[in-house]
Amino acid sequence: MNAYLPQPERHAHILFGVLRAHERLAELPALAEHADTALLTQVIEEAGRFVGEVVAPLNRDGDETGAQWKDGVVTMPPGFRESYQAFWQAGWPSLACAVEDGGQGLPTVVEAVLHEQLNAANHGWTMAPGLLHGAYECIRHHGSDTLKARYLEKLASGEWLATMCLTEPHAGSDLGLARTKAVPLPDGRFALSGTKIFISGGEHDLSDNIVHLVLARLPDAPPGPKGLSLFLVPKFHEDGTRSAVHCERIEEKMGIHASPTCVMRFDEARADIVGEPGKGLNAMFVMMNAARLLVGLQGIGLLDAAWQKANAYAQERRQMRAPGSASKAGEPDAIALHPAMQRILQTQRAWIDAGRVLAYRTALELDAQKHHPEASRRESAARWCSLVTPVLKAAWTEQAFSGASACLQVFGGHGYVREWGIEQHVRDARVAMIYEGTNEIQAIDLLLRKTLPDGGAALLALLGELGTDLAALPGAGRTRAAIARLQNFLRDELLPQAATEGAPPGRPFWLADDFLRATALLLMAWAWSRIAAAPGGDATAEAAFWRWVWPEFDMRMAMMAGTLATA
Amino acid sequence: MNAYLPQPERHAHILFGVLRAHERLAELPALAEHADTALLTQVIEEAGRFVGEVVAPLNRDGDETGAQWKDGVVTMPPGFRESYQAFWQAGWPSLACAVEDGGQGLPTVVEAVLHEQLNAANHGWTMAPGLLHGAYECIRHHGSDTLKARYLEKLASGEWLATMCLTEPHAGSDLGLARTKAVPLPDGRFALSGTKIFISGGEHDLSDNIVHLVLARLPDAPPGPKGLSLFLVPKFHEDGTRSAVHCERIEEKMGIHASPTCVMRFDEARADIVGEPGKGLNAMFVMMNAARLLVGLQGIGLLDAAWQKANAYAQERRQMRAPGSASKAGEPDAIALHPAMQRILQTQRAWIDAGRVLAYRTALELDAQKHHPEASRRESAARWCSLVTPVLKAAWTEQAFSGASACLQVFGGHGYVREWGIEQHVRDARVAMIYEGTNEIQAIDLLLRKTLPDGGAALLALLGELGTDLAALPGAGRTRAAIARLQNFLRDELLPQAATEGAPPGRPFWLADDFLRATALLLMAWAWSRIAAAPGGDATAEAAFWRWVWPEFDMRMAMMAGTLATA
Repeated sequence: MNAYLPQPERHAHILFGVLRAHERLAELPALAEHADTALLTQVIEEAGRFVGEVVAPLNRDGDETGAQWKDGVVTMPPGFRESYQAFWQAGWPSLACAVEDGGQGLPTVVEAVLHEQLNAANHGWTMAPGLLHGAYECIRHHGSDTLKARYLEKLASGEWLATMCLTEPHAGSDLGLARTKAVPLPDGRFALSGTKIFISGGEHDLSDNIVHLVLARLPDAPPGPKGLSLFLVPKFHEDGTRSAVHCERIEEKMGIHASPTCVMRFDEARADIVGEPGKGLNAMFVMMNAARLLVGLQGIGLLDAAWQKANAYAQERRQMRAPGSASKAGEPDAIALHPAMQRILQTQRAWIDAGRVLAYRTALELDAQKHHPEASRRESAARWCSLVTPVLKAAWTEQAFSGASACLQVFGGHGYVREWGIEQHVRDARVAMIYEGTNEIQAIDLLLRKTLPDGGAALLALLGELGTDLAALPGAGRTRAAIARLQNFLRDELLPQAATEGAPPGRPFWLADDFLRATALLLMAWAWSRIAAAPGGDATAEAAFWRWVWPEFDMRMAMMAGTLATA
Repeated sequence: MNAYLPQPERHAHILFGVLRAHERLAELPALAEHADTALLTQVIEEAGRFVGEVVAPLNRDGDETGAQWKDGVVTMPPGFRESYQAFWQAGWPSLACAVEDGGQGLPTVVEAVLHEQLNAANHGWTMAPGLLHGAYECIRHHGSDTLKARYLEKLASGEWLATMCLTEPHAGSDLGLARTKAVPLPDGRFALSGTKIFISGGEHDLSDNIVHLVLARLPDAPPGPKGLSLFLVPKFHEDGTRSAVHCERIEEKMGIHASPTCVMRFDEARADIVGEPGKGLNAMFVMMNAARLLVGLQGIGLLDAAWQKANAYAQERRQMRAPGSASKAGEPDAIALHPAMQRILQTQRAWIDAGRVLAYRTALELDAQKHHPEASRRESAARWCSLVTPVLKAAWTEQAFSGASACLQVFGGHGYVREWGIEQHVRDARVAMIYEGTNEIQAIDLLLRKTLPDGGAALLALLGELGTDLAALPGAGRTRAAIARLQNFLRDELLPQAATEGAPPGRPFWLADDFLRATALLLMAWAWSRIAAAPGGDATAEAAFWRWVWPEFDMRMAMMAGTLATA
């Protein structure tokens, strides 16, 4: 089966045709010089060329060979080190890093498109640089001048790679249970001891150094999340000595075999603190939010890769006559003509295109949040990022898995056989529903952390903006009515009931997943209204959205009403 | 992780408490002597003991080692041959075979329970004997006396295993494209040549002989499905010579690694015809219908295995405080107390218990279809089997995959790691949505082949019977109303529109999947009304059904209405 081939024109259509990214970027003085469709399109095309020629062809072998562990050393699959070296030397990791750190200062959205393509082409490969930008931002915002001088340029360029060491065997979603200890040393540094698990890229041969950002507990720290501080432990110290961090083993997993998922042991490893004591989670959140958008993009990319394979197969494979077939009597038709197959393929396109609208918009809002001259726009941008990121992460990783499985179905029995490569997407995609906060945690984040505490103010404001945005669009009445429906439900039913004394404890937890899904569908409806308003949209995918995706909105509203009615 | 442990009391509750199987069997003279709850319970318990002690412990190794091919010889994973030999020698394959063929003449439903347990314990292992009973029935009904004398007892006992050779590289769902040729020989036999793919258990070392049932085309046969005849080719002929059938390779697959999926080459292999020329598909349908019920049971078993693992993990694993927690301040709760996890676990139980009601009832109807003294009951039994089997196959294999994935989610990151064994269920379950007719083919079978051609008569009658069955039950009003709704939709909208001249060709194909899902949910609603009417039901799972499964019914009805409204 052919490797993934990026289609830059599809990205550009969403970015410029639908989102008018150039106009949005022109509003930001820091990025206005890049508000140029020709320039940005060229970067996306070059990215697509690199991804298609260098990274995509390594995907199958990466899955088959996998990362190999021996005596603490991890060897990546054939071609991985060479291609990663070419990747950073060509400047791809530094696209959106600050010019003063050696970066190219391009808009975040260009990096978003690059990462979507990379993940579509080779999920396992992309795991390694996936955390790079988050680590860069984390050090940039929270690191001391010494740390910045030592690490910032190396991370911006991607010459060194980075990890995020959070999870411990007994502390997964509940990071507050982490026990890794950091003991102060006389020179102001720390001796860090403990075991971290599920560390993607904890050890490998892609880069000459690896920078670990580690959550740990100072001796006098209180229990729970407030006792966590963030530390930096490099694989090699500034004096060239090897630090006391060891990869004990790598996990045998369902998928992403090319990405070593490491158990890392720290034996009084020399560490520097990043940010203030007890503020480790805050500092880490910078990384985690960036990572969550990237995981949402991963979902979109994986789904697009699966769709591309299934679509190609459906054009070639001939079985039975399609209803209304015009072909010669007795001749089987391409299965792309059979309604059940069309439905699968069109539905995935409905998710891919809407996902791109939302993810690229989020990337644009990340820049607006930083750079917009008006405070009110910075505030609305921050609101968008805070609320849309968990929805993107959860709904599009779920769709990457179930949609890749639907694409596998297009292949019939051949889909279950490894040689076609479609089953790899299903296995790979499954992890994205778990890492960077499980999808259930995303739902709790949206409803319990970001919506109920402020009386729904932020989400109601976001929904209001979406409604206003559609006010002038003909044909967007259905979307506007649904926006009003979710607003009313939140304002008149969910919020009052959640605030009622004596309400069953935790009732909102029972409907958090439905609430996230309803929000996701509403955002999709907005996206499809926007796509429809621009020339060149995919009318078939639009119809598929309204026919086969959108009806879930009513179902989720009914489920939530049912939960509120349950004693 | 512990291996699967059958819970015979759960099967017995559905079988006797809910379905009153003993009363139904008492109506059948041929089986009345077995209409004894104590006897049947004992068989189910003994089956559970064998499955739990002998078959379940081989599951993990079977996945890791897999079946191995070398020079045409397939070696099964460690313990497989010994356990299979013990299995047939203990008489398990012949439970429901006729006494005159050496069988035990027990009701089909006992075999159904056995197969559910086997599949839950070890899907790969169970693939080999999975086709045995179908092959036995096929030869029994269509084989010549010579073939019966030669094969019937060996297949009834399970001493020899069997395959179903249908698919060819270019002929998957469209069997009419098959090209394998059978040339008559002077002695009345045939020389069979061609290549068949996806042959489960085409070659292995479990049994001393393997009986292949092969679709092929006589020289003068017309093109298409009506030109197919059925042939029998054994691995070893009656004179002990090796026949000219070879296993060219086995597929590398996403899952069921312990089951060799073989490419079989027939080189003028000596064959006997089974049944009449040109009636191959008819003869094969006997096998395929039996196989489809077993695949539905596979779905139920795999889902139960995944639920069992996730449930055990959720009791052990402690993360964060659950809402309304009564545990000591600062102590994390078992994740089984968290709403999102409860929802996952309860929803799977809702599917498992309802699936058992429907599958065991189908097995009872299979016996009623054969043995009931009243023609009208035989007819309604045949109707049930014909209509419910595709629904069971499609909806419960879909749920086995998506539900096993939901159970994987309970494990968080650990679920993605092979050592916990839950990801194996997800990989294994995926194939059941494809084989024995893809789930899309099942939907076409239900709507296009079995419902529209008779003007809905059979399905309307079945739905009517379900409604009547619930008439006296308090609390079944919601189910009865939904039954009426689907009846009215079928009678007043779908059938008239499908019959309208000039209607878009193939419109029913566009909603066949929705129609099957709506029917599945309705059957589940009936099952849950029945469970609720018997003492000892799982009230939590019942509530989960109505709260989180049932709302899809409205969604499917809305999707179908949308499709009918589309030009």
